[in-house]
Amino acid sequence: MSKPGQLADNEVYLGNYLLDRLAQLGVRCLYGVPGDFNLTFLDLVVEHPDIEWIGCCNELNAAYAADGYARVKQAQLNQDHEGSQADSKPGQAKSQGGKDKTQGGVRGLGALLTTQGVGELSAINGIAGAYAERVPVLHVVGVASTKLQKSRAVLHHTLGDGLTRVFEEAHSGITCARAFLQGAEDAAAEIDRILLAALTKARPAYLSLPTDLVFIPVDKKRLETPVVPDSVGFENHDVLPTGKKVQDEEKKRLAFVVKEIERLWDGAKDPIVLIDACSIRYGVSHLVRDLVHATKVKFYTTPMGRTAIDEDPANGFGGVYVGEISDAAVKEVVEKSDLVVMVGSLKSDFNTGEFSYPFPQETVIELHSDSTLVQYAHYPDVSFHVLLPALAKALKPKENVSQPPKDVGLSTTVPEGNKDEMVTQKAFWPMMGAKLFKENDIVVTETGTSNFGILGSALPNGATSVAAITWGAIGAATPMTLGALLAAQETSTPRRTILFTGDGSIQLTLQEVATMIRLGLKPILVILNNDGYTIEKLIHGETAPYNDIPSFDWQSMLSFFNAPGPRFKPLPTKSWLAETRGQLEEILANEEFQKADKIQVLEVRMAPLDAPENLVKQGKLSAELNAA
Amino acid sequence: MSKPGQLADNEVYLGNYLLDRLAQLGVRCLYGVPGDFNLTFLDLVVEHPDIEWIGCCNELNAAYAADGYARVKQAQLNQDHEGSQADSKPGQAKSQGGKDKTQGGVRGLGALLTTQGVGELSAINGIAGAYAERVPVLHVVGVASTKLQKSRAVLHHTLGDGLTRVFEEAHSGITCARAFLQGAEDAAAEIDRILLAALTKARPAYLSLPTDLVFIPVDKKRLETPVVPDSVGFENHDVLPTGKKVQDEEKKRLAFVVKEIERLWDGAKDPIVLIDACSIRYGVSHLVRDLVHATKVKFYTTPMGRTAIDEDPANGFGGVYVGEISDAAVKEVVEKSDLVVMVGSLKSDFNTGEFSYPFPQETVIELHSDSTLVQYAHYPDVSFHVLLPALAKALKPKENVSQPPKDVGLSTTVPEGNKDEMVTQKAFWPMMGAKLFKENDIVVTETGTSNFGILGSALPNGATSVAAITWGAIGAATPMTLGALLAAQETSTPRRTILFTGDGSIQLTLQEVATMIRLGLKPILVILNNDGYTIEKLIHGETAPYNDIPSFDWQSMLSFFNAPGPRFKPLPTKSWLAETRGQLEEILANEEFQKADKIQVLEVRMAPLDAPENLVKQGKLSAELNAA
Repeated sequence: MSKPGQLADNEVYLGNYLLDRLAQLGVRCLYGVPGDFNLTFLDLVVEHPDIEWIGCCNELNAAYAADGYARVKQAQLNQDHEGSQADSKPGQAKSQGGKDKTQGGVRGLGALLTTQGVGELSAINGIAGAYAERVPVLHVVGVASTKLQKSRAVLHHTLGDGLTRVFEEAHSGITCARAFLQGAEDAAAEIDRILLAALTKARPAYLSLPTDLVFIPVDKKRLETPVVPDSVGFENHDVLPTGKKVQDEEKKRLAFVVKEIERLWDGAKDPIVLIDACSIRYGVSHLVRDLVHATKVKFYTTPMGRTAIDEDPANGFGGVYVGEISDAAVKEVVEKSDLVVMVGSLKSDFNTGEFSYPFPQETVIELHSDSTLVQYAHYPDVSFHVLLPALAKALKPKENVSQPPKDVGLSTTVPEGNKDEMVTQKAFWPMMGAKLFKENDIVVTETGTSNFGILGSALPNGATSVAAITWGAIGAATPMTLGALLAAQETSTPRRTILFTGDGSIQLTLQEVATMIRLGLKPILVILNNDGYTIEKLIHGETAPYNDIPSFDWQSMLSFFNAPGPRFKPLPTKSWLAETRGQLEEILANEEFQKADKIQVLEVRMAPLDAPENLVKQGKLSAELNAA
Repeated sequence: MSKPGQLADNEVYLGNYLLDRLAQLGVRCLYGVPGDFNLTFLDLVVEHPDIEWIGCCNELNAAYAADGYARVKQAQLNQDHEGSQADSKPGQAKSQGGKDKTQGGVRGLGALLTTQGVGELSAINGIAGAYAERVPVLHVVGVASTKLQKSRAVLHHTLGDGLTRVFEEAHSGITCARAFLQGAEDAAAEIDRILLAALTKARPAYLSLPTDLVFIPVDKKRLETPVVPDSVGFENHDVLPTGKKVQDEEKKRLAFVVKEIERLWDGAKDPIVLIDACSIRYGVSHLVRDLVHATKVKFYTTPMGRTAIDEDPANGFGGVYVGEISDAAVKEVVEKSDLVVMVGSLKSDFNTGEFSYPFPQETVIELHSDSTLVQYAHYPDVSFHVLLPALAKALKPKENVSQPPKDVGLSTTVPEGNKDEMVTQKAFWPMMGAKLFKENDIVVTETGTSNFGILGSALPNGATSVAAITWGAIGAATPMTLGALLAAQETSTPRRTILFTGDGSIQLTLQEVATMIRLGLKPILVILNNDGYTIEKLIHGETAPYNDIPSFDWQSMLSFFNAPGPRFKPLPTKSWLAETRGQLEEILANEEFQKADKIQVLEVRMAPLDAPENLVKQGKLSAELNAA
């Protein structure tokens, strides 16, 4: 497993080839856990000038962290597209060869390294989540040498029946591409193939890296050809993300679709744009922004579409729309619209108020990465990458933004309440919008009360919302916060990272807070301590013992994770406790807290059955559907 | 999802059918995490008179706990076979209908409940481990209703593309049987089918339970027919575990094999028995004991075969044999044997000193659950279930036990050392054998220094060793300890449960200690604090940063997990710190510590690169094999 002799000038070790590729695609952090089949590759990782090894406390947490990292990187890349307009010229891929060597336009990529069997299977739920939520993450698995694989030896970290492909097969439904490297010939090409797939499909990919291939020499020159073809920018409407040029016939089809939409637009009195997850994931947020600015249309976001573009009421933001569980005022305005342009919809139950969109199909236009739907007409291969800029040019301004939105459902007015009372969910979320959030904050919310509560918080310009609404794996948000913190360090804009989680959720993954401390990161960790699984209680089993959890002393968590060690000097930390509304207000007004210059816990005690109103509604809808 | 009306007298809800089956098979604890697709089934669980719900902090931990539970149950069932001899009569299945309604003879079954997608995939590494290590665990997954499945709705906890079978398929290589319940007709039969498979194959099985099937009525009468056919006891040598009667031809074949072995036995000067994992897993420990007692042969255990029977030198125990990495004295004696009878071998790398058995094939007999190997001759279908009792009758005593073993390599003599020195691995493990372990202790060891170190500790009669040597997933031992503790409560013999883990390993799964506290359990948690992943350092990267971990304050862990809560009053706990050998000796001599009447942490500081000698050897062998 030791390094062979000198490489020729035109060669690079396969392990370094992989790392160079990741670096070209903007990856600066590789998350994972060491294991005996990835250790020599790790030597290359720690030597690499552009990539930092982020050892996590376990593999599932590492996968979540890589996911959170990719999401925030994506949001930052979207924001970097300032002032891009629909008039960008063919062949000019804006971000190509940009400041941090990022190739392939606006894509945030995450990367994870585990070891055969035990490591990769521990991480698999995080990879499945990235698949469900459309986040490109490369899962690299260090496996036994090709020789040992062929001998079918009963190695540790195997099922005891030789090295079969069971683990790789377990990844088949939850990754968009897989490569099982077996020799020098095609290894580099295989790496490129799955990276391109991950980036264009916005899904995770899987790579098994045998110990004996880490140091095989491959052609260095190949690195000069970008993984994502040179001529491609995702914002470039003459070239598709796959590198395919738009042909004349395709242009005609595009023009036809634009005309169709224009006709409906002109006839509509009150059109709106509804921005959803895939706008962010496929890197077209800036194109949506251009459309909204150009047409002055009122826009709304879904839970998964939040902060795709600045949620600024002055620029037409009307609120968060979630069907039945929307704020009543938002629901009323949205549902009386006579033309709903949905961009990047991901219509999962929790993202749509349990499938409760009431729009007549005649009033619906859906723009997707790979197709367009206009009323009942389906147009395959008409992608929003090309359609959005065309629409921004074609559609006439509607000026409905000039009527200031009645109520965006994100009031910064905090409901009245007594200072000595326990904090209520009803008061808490508007308070966050009014008194905690600042421009450029990253706000990570957990499945449960937080993902629903945050829908009632105003998010300032430049903020990034991170929330796994569809996959909904509790516990994910804490390690995702680790990834978010590290992504934030890669931008020159100072960003605070704030996690909202519950005691029921953070227990699953809490050790990753130790990694934050070890790396000197400075999140604000808000723990809503309401004694158990509130979201489950609202669905079923309000007082059932199975919705109880152990009782953690959240005030002592940071000190548990902050012991002096041979290579570690404890860092400053601060833990805050708000048992009453008055205490919470004081903390929020405290400059030390707001400054976020050290890692902080803010524990807020809440009543076990108190929940955001929209979650109460969702709980009932879920229970009904399960019972149906 | 609510309960339908009254059942007919001859009916039972499917959910209860499943629970009754589990109870019949000795399952008293169901481990898992609640999720919205398993909540109504959980109502039945908490109502069930024989089954307790053990809510864990996350699903992977729950899977490990179910595995640890099954292992200790298995060991206890093996021990309950006191005085069984080779003369047990056909048709008399000893444990049938035994004291706790256990059917199917000597099988420890574990059970796990998770929710669709997020839950089941989080647990999958633990299930794969049970597969590799031959532990029967039923993984029940609460999934969306059959109706929702058919609608292909984009539910949360799905990949967003409708409810496909991806998650079930991910289980296909790591379970021995799977049932995807879809209707009333065959649901009960399917449950029985996979339970029988799990028990006879000693492997995990998978069951998906849709929300709408939990309360369908099924025929109650079916419960009167045992899952494992009534006439079958695994110790009964006229009936195979599958229920198949032994035919005349098979009896002739058996007699032939017995004769062959007898011939070799008579000609051997110094035969030995080497007891391995599958003796325990397939419930034949008592038959091995009968053979050893009847023939007075000297016996050895592999790492995975430890405590299959009492390791009593007075009864012929000669030590732990692990090929190259064995204690030198043991190695010498074993390797000069001229006939090695291996029972239940599982020849994985870490269980064999990296495949370093030197035995000429002419001197080897292997007894397995499904076949027998005599020198070069392979006899399919000749199972140790039938062969062991026959051999115990046929083989003449060898009396080599009368020579007291020279040195069993498990000296209770602790190497000399200064009281002010840091504790060394070399001294630590003999100390545990000499000064900590008592009869009936359960000793759980973690992958890493502990699994190797324990090979140098003497284990008293009645002790149970729990160690996942082949799968080797770090972190598993802590939740396995939870399962072990609960299994121990099911026997009338008081048993202490002692975990040995390292700071590198426990960080992966530490929250499960909170569950131990919540349930009032009283383990001794020995944490070898040596600042990182020592086992990895010995394989590769001695001082590499990737083998470092965060710095935890182990002395404050128990208080972090022991906060007062609305339904929880903090329990007594105690944390001990041994920075020197003198301090460790004092703690071991302390009656309060030895009494184990509360949960305790014993943190032992050790040098980062200190490791048991056998692990140092193993590290070198692993590195060589990876490099080959």
